[in-house]
Amino acid sequence: MQTKVSTIQSLFAAYQQGEDLAAQGLVKVSGWVRTNRDNGSIGFIALNDGTCFKNMQVVYHEDLLGHEEISHLLTGAAIYVEGKIVLTPEMKQPFELQASKIEILGQVEPDYPLQKKRHSFEYLREIAYLRPRTNTFSALYRVRSVLALAIHEFFQGKGFVYVHTPILTGNDAEGAGQVFTVCTKDDEGKLSETAFYGQKTSLTVSGQLHVEPFALAFRDVYTFGPTFRAEKSNTPRHASEFWMIEPEIAFADLEDDMDLMEETIKYVIRFVLDRCPDEMAFFDQMIAPGLLQKLNDVLAAPFRRMEYTEAIGLLQEAVKNGHKFDYNKIEWGMDLQSEHERFLTEQIVKGPMFLINYPKDIKAFYMRENDDGKTVAACDCLVPGEGEIIGGSQREERYEILKAKMEKQGNIEELDWYLNLRKWGGCIHSGFGIGFDRLLSYITGVANIRDTEPYPRTSGGLRF
Amino acid sequence: MQTKVSTIQSLFAAYQQGEDLAAQGLVKVSGWVRTNRDNGSIGFIALNDGTCFKNMQVVYHEDLLGHEEISHLLTGAAIYVEGKIVLTPEMKQPFELQASKIEILGQVEPDYPLQKKRHSFEYLREIAYLRPRTNTFSALYRVRSVLALAIHEFFQGKGFVYVHTPILTGNDAEGAGQVFTVCTKDDEGKLSETAFYGQKTSLTVSGQLHVEPFALAFRDVYTFGPTFRAEKSNTPRHASEFWMIEPEIAFADLEDDMDLMEETIKYVIRFVLDRCPDEMAFFDQMIAPGLLQKLNDVLAAPFRRMEYTEAIGLLQEAVKNGHKFDYNKIEWGMDLQSEHERFLTEQIVKGPMFLINYPKDIKAFYMRENDDGKTVAACDCLVPGEGEIIGGSQREERYEILKAKMEKQGNIEELDWYLNLRKWGGCIHSGFGIGFDRLLSYITGVANIRDTEPYPRTSGGLRF
Repeated sequence: MQTKVSTIQSLFAAYQQGEDLAAQGLVKVSGWVRTNRDNGSIGFIALNDGTCFKNMQVVYHEDLLGHEEISHLLTGAAIYVEGKIVLTPEMKQPFELQASKIEILGQVEPDYPLQKKRHSFEYLREIAYLRPRTNTFSALYRVRSVLALAIHEFFQGKGFVYVHTPILTGNDAEGAGQVFTVCTKDDEGKLSETAFYGQKTSLTVSGQLHVEPFALAFRDVYTFGPTFRAEKSNTPRHASEFWMIEPEIAFADLEDDMDLMEETIKYVIRFVLDRCPDEMAFFDQMIAPGLLQKLNDVLAAPFRRMEYTEAIGLLQEAVKNGHKFDYNKIEWGMDLQSEHERFLTEQIVKGPMFLINYPKDIKAFYMRENDDGKTVAACDCLVPGEGEIIGGSQREERYEILKAKMEKQGNIEELDWYLNLRKWGGCIHSGFGIGFDRLLSYITGVANIRDTEPYPRTSGGLRF
Repeated sequence: MQTKVSTIQSLFAAYQQGEDLAAQGLVKVSGWVRTNRDNGSIGFIALNDGTCFKNMQVVYHEDLLGHEEISHLLTGAAIYVEGKIVLTPEMKQPFELQASKIEILGQVEPDYPLQKKRHSFEYLREIAYLRPRTNTFSALYRVRSVLALAIHEFFQGKGFVYVHTPILTGNDAEGAGQVFTVCTKDDEGKLSETAFYGQKTSLTVSGQLHVEPFALAFRDVYTFGPTFRAEKSNTPRHASEFWMIEPEIAFADLEDDMDLMEETIKYVIRFVLDRCPDEMAFFDQMIAPGLLQKLNDVLAAPFRRMEYTEAIGLLQEAVKNGHKFDYNKIEWGMDLQSEHERFLTEQIVKGPMFLINYPKDIKAFYMRENDDGKTVAACDCLVPGEGEIIGGSQREERYEILKAKMEKQGNIEELDWYLNLRKWGGCIHSGFGIGFDRLLSYITGVANIRDTEPYPRTSGGLRF
């Protein structure tokens, strides 16, 4: 059947390319009724087939076969339509389909939870599997898909090799946060952490350690896959399952790393703006006024680079001048809170920025120690309206220094292979991590991670 | 540093485009030594920087600064080279780099487990993280990356929406196979299946049930992500973690489904052959003689469609004529073994084929029942040299029929939402699943799934 029908997307595209749709003869489409109104002699269906954000107007008259039933079609019904395209240059939509035949493929029973009215995000989360049928989520999940493609096209266009790092792992990377344990039943039917693999198994929190060996073979690589944190943080920014992008580049220092981050962010924003103009205009209008301006500002701005130490000084000065943070005791060595990051990018720099060279005590063991002995070559990318969207670092490539750190960390036995990389043709290398769901949230203005994920996994439960 | 050097890939590309590399002035590259031989006055390094399969020849002379140390560089060392390109049309490689400077970035200690000689696949699995430094695995993981891009470009080029279906799930889809249970520690520090989400949580075995609701909103969608089976099958084809591609299309019957499968397979094969000619030639020569012929045959062949019932007849006839299967009792209703599938595609059809309309009792509950009351609209795609590479079906869209099946299956409570789709604007729809790792194995001729995955997760363990 698919081969016999046109997509609504292809009709709009043909119209935009100047094709004469009215000359097309019989057009066949299938899709779902978004709205249906009928005054007895003439009826209008806004039809959406999922192939684009826009609906197509279907017009039918009282002499249509099955008119009575068609005039009562409810929002959500699946139909097949045949008819002729009529150009309507004086109307909001540039053309409509004058139906000569409408077939009902799937009725909607009256208990359908999606009605014509506007539903709250909270309500829609309760029926997550129906959300993509609404304007907002139709736009959101299409942008999600296009953003994922942007990632692949960007990195592969630059020759990066995509690596599927494992989900099941015997180590927990940074030792950061709680991990999920993976079990099977042992011979006695009891839950066992070790029955399957013979050792404790966790869900990965990051692919970085596993992708570094690939950077030391392919030079430029990236991961893009799900990661997990068993943290019961009930915030709009935390999910227990989320997708991460982790590029890793060899023969590259922190400067190269920041260049790549900036290029990545600008590329994917431009890609989404190019490919999803209708969706992005919708978000700008209905969800986050000023969104397009915000994104265009990022595209236009060079990302400023600032030392952590300088940032601490600026924050202290702000406090001295009367600015009140929730966490107001600013001192060198502290981990910055989101409010501090946002103050820096929104009030001081007034644009995207990198914060670099953090105190080593608040950063991970694999980050490269700077010559000052106090800081590491780490950087966070901060943007107005969000705070941190990327974290990265140059990795410690010196065997003895890394070994000492891993001994202190206590992970040298399980990660011996990671340390080995430093004695067999090691070189300077760097990388970063982007939370894909947060990036989507930033680009669309849809603030809650429970909405950006198709089936969000937060500590709340697993309804679907 | 990255911005200051050329990639070897870009040098070969420039050469192929007819640029005069000899006129380029000083060329700077960094990479790893594959081989190094020196006769005292002149030395040759085969340098690989990971950006392409090919090595570049670096030539150095005894007057080079640090010559003594350079002449002793071992396989695997990371170096930086400056020099001038000299064209060598009479040699195997079309140009070489005459080094004026070689800097050692990372030495190789003598315990390096990769030596110049050829290592067995079994040995290399023990050092999985170093495998990408070998020819075979460098080729394999680059093809893996390009094949993943092929999937995204194919589906997105056709307007499909990419959906990240969840890894953590409260249901186990087909009820097929053993699942991994996901646990956290409860307040007393004991492993608990329910402490985090308040219900039993498993790792997904398929994204299909979760992606169907998206097909009923976007029409054409696909998933591409990791899936899991806690089966202790110690075979070359089974892994406990593997990536699956699961397209799902609305307003589409089994014919549409098969059209899409055939188009998918042909597109991705062509894409890989186009993008990875060196790698594929290597596989054809070193790993699987005849590989390119096999793939080109698939590209040229129309995929034949055959009823399961006809296939049973043909197999019975073969047995009657003296063919011996390990499982030799062929009868209608049986699940075909791999040997039967391969006989059909290799001996009978002598080409790729679809086997359709299987007995309903051996297939999943969601497959659409045919009018004969005995079979379902399922299909498997079989190819010579492999057997099944895709399984798909038209889904049951009729509420009452599906409900009865789910009541029998006993999953109606946890999957009520899945059933609901059939009463709210449901329509015919179809989909299929491709095991990505097996597809890679088929396309490269690398037979064991332990090799096609960067860090294979089989029941054997989790060394890395």
